[in-house]
Amino acid sequence: MTPLVSIIMGSTSDLPILKKASDFLNEMEIPFEMNALSAHRTPHQVEEFATKAQERGLKVIIAAAGMSAALPGVIASLTSLPVIGVPINSSLDGLDALLSIAQMPPGIPVVSVGINGALNAAVIAARILALSDEKIRKRIDNYSVGLSKKIVKANEELKELKYPYKIN
Amino acid sequence: MTPLVSIIMGSTSDLPILKKASDFLNEMEIPFEMNALSAHRTPHQVEEFATKAQERGLKVIIAAAGMSAALPGVIASLTSLPVIGVPINSSLDGLDALLSIAQMPPGIPVVSVGINGALNAAVIAARILALSDEKIRKRIDNYSVGLSKKIVKANEELKELKYPYKIN
Amino acid sequence: MTPLVSIIMGSTSDLPILKKASDFLNEMEIPFEMNALSAHRTPHQVEEFATKAQERGLKVIIAAAGMSAALPGVIASLTSLPVIGVPINSSLDGLDALLSIAQMPPGIPVVSVGINGALNAAVIAARILALSDEKIRKRIDNYSVGLSKKIVKANEELKELKYPYKIN
Amino acid sequence: MTPLVSIIMGSTSDLPILKKASDFLNEMEIPFEMNALSAHRTPHQVEEFATKAQERGLKVIIAAAGMSAALPGVIASLTSLPVIGVPINSSLDGLDALLSIAQMPPGIPVVSVGINGALNAAVIAARILALSDEKIRKRIDNYSVGLSKKIVKANEELKELKYPYKIN
Amino acid sequence: MTPLVSIIMGSTSDLPILKKASDFLNEMEIPFEMNALSAHRTPHQVEEFATKAQERGLKVIIAAAGMSAALPGVIASLTSLPVIGVPINSSLDGLDALLSIAQMPPGIPVVSVGINGALNAAVIAARILALSDEKIRKRIDNYSVGLSKKIVKANEELKELKYPYKIN
Amino acid sequence: MTPLVSIIMGSTSDLPILKKASDFLNEMEIPFEMNALSAHRTPHQVEEFATKAQERGLKVIIAAAGMSAALPGVIASLTSLPVIGVPINSSLDGLDALLSIAQMPPGIPVVSVGINGALNAAVIAARILALSDEKIRKRIDNYSVGLSKKIVKANEELKELKYPYKIN
Amino acid sequence: MTPLVSIIMGSTSDLPILKKASDFLNEMEIPFEMNALSAHRTPHQVEEFATKAQERGLKVIIAAAGMSAALPGVIASLTSLPVIGVPINSSLDGLDALLSIAQMPPGIPVVSVGINGALNAAVIAARILALSDEKIRKRIDNYSVGLSKKIVKANEELKELKYPYKIN
Amino acid sequence: MTPLVSIIMGSTSDLPILKKASDFLNEMEIPFEMNALSAHRTPHQVEEFATKAQERGLKVIIAAAGMSAALPGVIASLTSLPVIGVPINSSLDGLDALLSIAQMPPGIPVVSVGINGALNAAVIAARILALSDEKIRKRIDNYSVGLSKKIVKANEELKELKYPYKIN
Repeated sequence: MTPLVSIIMGSTSDLPILKKASDFLNEMEIPFEMNALSAHRTPHQVEEFATKAQERGLKVIIAAAGMSAALPGVIASLTSLPVIGVPINSSLDGLDALLSIAQMPPGIPVVSVGINGALNAAVIAARILALSDEKIRKRIDNYSVGLSKKIVKANEELKELKYPYKIN
Repeated sequence: MTPLVSIIMGSTSDLPILKKASDFLNEMEIPFEMNALSAHRTPHQVEEFATKAQERGLKVIIAAAGMSAALPGVIASLTSLPVIGVPINSSLDGLDALLSIAQMPPGIPVVSVGINGALNAAVIAARILALSDEKIRKRIDNYSVGLSKKIVKANEELKELKYPYKIN
Repeated sequence: MTPLVSIIMGSTSDLPILKKASDFLNEMEIPFEMNALSAHRTPHQVEEFATKAQERGLKVIIAAAGMSAALPGVIASLTSLPVIGVPINSSLDGLDALLSIAQMPPGIPVVSVGINGALNAAVIAARILALSDEKIRKRIDNYSVGLSKKIVKANEELKELKYPYKIN
Repeated sequence: MTPLVSIIMGSTSDLPILKKASDFLNEMEIPFEMNALSAHRTPHQVEEFATKAQERGLKVIIAAAGMSAALPGVIASLTSLPVIGVPINSSLDGLDALLSIAQMPPGIPVVSVGINGALNAAVIAARILALSDEKIRKRIDNYSVGLSKKIVKANEELKELKYPYKIN
Repeated sequence: MTPLVSIIMGSTSDLPILKKASDFLNEMEIPFEMNALSAHRTPHQVEEFATKAQERGLKVIIAAAGMSAALPGVIASLTSLPVIGVPINSSLDGLDALLSIAQMPPGIPVVSVGINGALNAAVIAARILALSDEKIRKRIDNYSVGLSKKIVKANEELKELKYPYKIN
Repeated sequence: MTPLVSIIMGSTSDLPILKKASDFLNEMEIPFEMNALSAHRTPHQVEEFATKAQERGLKVIIAAAGMSAALPGVIASLTSLPVIGVPINSSLDGLDALLSIAQMPPGIPVVSVGINGALNAAVIAARILALSDEKIRKRIDNYSVGLSKKIVKANEELKELKYPYKIN
Repeated sequence: MTPLVSIIMGSTSDLPILKKASDFLNEMEIPFEMNALSAHRTPHQVEEFATKAQERGLKVIIAAAGMSAALPGVIASLTSLPVIGVPINSSLDGLDALLSIAQMPPGIPVVSVGINGALNAAVIAARILALSDEKIRKRIDNYSVGLSKKIVKANEELKELKYPYKIN
Repeated sequence: MTPLVSIIMGSTSDLPILKKASDFLNEMEIPFEMNALSAHRTPHQVEEFATKAQERGLKVIIAAAGMSAALPGVIASLTSLPVIGVPINSSLDGLDALLSIAQMPPGIPVVSVGINGALNAAVIAARILALSDEKIRKRIDNYSVGLSKKIVKANEELKELKYPYKIN
């Protein structure tokens, strides 16, 4: 199947963080691909990727990068697909990457999720795809219900434990 | 026409910043609406808005807020539409709003543009809508070409000025 | 006994931090309850909790959350009980949570203790309840005397050790 | 009437910020007093104030301070009344004052509102007093309804303006 | 004469800051050029510039950018000339630009001067060119002596004023 | 009279801030001198100053600098007199200067007052000189009493105004 | 012997950091004492200590504290001895403590060393005492020579290793 | 062979970080030396080193330092060679060192690489030397191709793994 989402990472050392994104896309049954591309070390490959992304059928690009984190912005400058940046914490608690990703100049946007927030990038990608795919929306809704249920169940367990109230 | 994008602001004092978003959407001929809603002062209105957003035909929600900036996240918890947060600089250079918007818990995402980045929020909304509307994509592409031409022209003027090189 | 204080946490993974609050309330013989509720994952449960909190006899709400930390503010918007926020350090040294909790818009307050400061949230709750319960005030005063005594004793031990002055 | 709330400021230059607190307390018909006291310049007056606060009938202390902002903490160490700190922005965007106020050691709490958040300090004081005074709670509820109505009205005006949607 | 230094700016609104660089290069009699190029708005022009920079005889590139400030890094990825970044303060006191410029990944360096430090970028460019041009080094040395003399003279004036010592 | 304190500034543009130091020293009748010296622009003059400071009879050195603020540390490395640094706010709210001054390596200390805290640097210098001069201590004590009285008077005026309590 | 320096800590858990100060004072043969006192938990003991410090013959006070770090400032408000604050890193990398200590209001100074910089606090104390004790100055000068020699020796070893230059 | 690059460190404990610089210079066959020198502990050695650096044939100086990081700036004030600073993370995530190095006053520049970015300092040094040495440029180009190939290969492996796409 043609991938709808492309997950790009500047370094394969970020795979453990991005796995949360790919697991979610699998759960949502959204075809995707993963690429290792570096804005600073493989600029030509990035350009080729970005300029061909739309015609290859991609709908959303998730780009993760740490430190000066130029990758999402460089891609966004070469395609008109929506680009979601994932700031990776590899220095300064990830604040450098968050600022590098979010503070784009007017007209060429990247949107950022939180630091190391790969899962949320995938959820937003799914929300975008759900705009024209009712099945995906249902899966997202189920997923959200699941999140909610987990908390509700944790709450019930908390009360059963009667933890830690000892008075009476 | 049914609005496709809803621009939400916590306070109408943010209108001058959000006008850049509405101007862009007008330029792209994307129907939109604007609302003043506060997560903390009109929680019930926010809930009503968010839970009905999808059935009303909205596709993307842009939510601007300053300081603790809970508005985008609260909306995102009540709809499965993509929500784009615009951190407003009303204290601490806007860093508090950027962190409050981007650092969402796993599973319920808001994506953030830069501080006061209302224009970029609108451009991302347009990029999302362009996934199923070729006319919008063409307008975005024209817009991007326009941005590029402005820089190219500025570059030419810079060279004509021979500013400030005085040697020879 | 009807709980007077409700300790809310966004995730039960915060229990070890919040245990300091519940231990203190037990020590003060203040009835309390603990709940797991998430502003973003169980918004309806949060609303139900907050709107019924007062009529259930609760006096003070302690709400702990990390990252974008919307929970205390969302509760404060739905009740007129005092809400004390506990910023949890789960990213950026907890600075994101502290700012998200403290920087509330005018009119809807949350008050924040320090990062991971669950004990202090419980002490403030006790100070509030002591306004109309002389027994609690006495217990707080005893507790404060105890804190003081611990330092005085440490000071004495320090002097007995003659540590580390070796001259003479 | 005996004041229930004492508003303390380190310097009378902070009066314009604290006026928002006193205006609100007047609106809620809560008797209060205002004092100028400095932790570092009038330590003995601070001690006298704090140790006698409770027996004078005070219920809540609001203490505003900028920079190293020791005032709220020093007061909190000498009374068991609840102390609400207001970090004043007089340097570093007020971040120094926020941290100095919120990051209290375990056992001796100060709760902090946002930077320059004097109004919210007064609202929390009112919420605390409302625990034993139904009239105050009703006034707070009216005040909150008023806040909500202002946004609702702004929203309606926004829609009447049809600003800025020009397509159709 | 063939320019040896190219000063690149993302926007001509940065000209007043960069004029300090061009004035210095003129003073050092170092031929230079100025260009307006944007990593995000004219990516193809940036690529063309960077890949041809060396063969055109350029020796040093000074690239100024604000916010996410990708320009210096993108150029550095496409040339092996030394690239000096000038972080422009257009948000967050310039901290976002400083981090975006300095925190480059291993192997592809940009070196950063201070925020708005265009003059220092030009001085470093001159120090680099002086490695193979003794005339430039002499001019730099004269310039440094001039800086020193200004302080020495200010010091003398300070002493003549006998400002502000009034005792004796 | 031989100066006991030397106030050093990297640039005479800092004179308005340092005047608070010189005014205080005059008030305390402590002989002092003022110098303009730059760690980076007049390194040899700094060295000469620092190495001769003690034999000239100086007791305390106050060194003010902004940005990377090396001046106090460089002086401290060349003398064993106590050096008090005054971080000047000329960028980043003065945080860069504060960190540059305070974060000295083990063994070679500079002590820092707050940002733009020239007055406090002079007060500390006076406290140091008072260790061996009872007259100076009396003047400091009078000065402190004066500070205290100002607050006490402001407090009284505040109460006379009955500002802003309007109930009763 | 009468102690000349008093090292105060808010908690004996800071002893390992403060040992660097006491070791240095021992090495300089400067009599000192150590006390555990807390601004917030033993305010009366702090007051007694501070008001009697001078008459007991103390010359310099070193006060270490973390978080809101009020201890040095509270002591400085109750004595006219010079007070040196040591910000302890117990949260936020110690930035909260540094700001709380350095950002004192005008007229009541505390001078701060770097984060966890207990050694430097002791060195400054010694530099102050050396103003009236030539023996201490000689010991400091020897100490400084020792620091210098260590680096010189490390430099020589570095060169002998020929590490890591492998060409030729 | 005469060294062209001198790598200076304030402490030999930074050797593991600086090894990345020396390894790269070895790989580029650029003769270099390493020195341990401290701005604050061996000021005279620093002065001797800096004033003689050029006549000894050095072309570029790499100076690494943590905390207040005065070393690169002090060297830059005593030579007209280009000085590259490497901020070492030994406190505050290295932000103090980055600011101390980059925020130099106008006229005396240091250029900074990222935090702990010793490798990039060496690459910039090589780029500078390549301006007059075609062999070095070729080696740099090969190195860059190598970096690129590594990513390309990682990308291929990523695709072969078909990791983690499980649908279809």
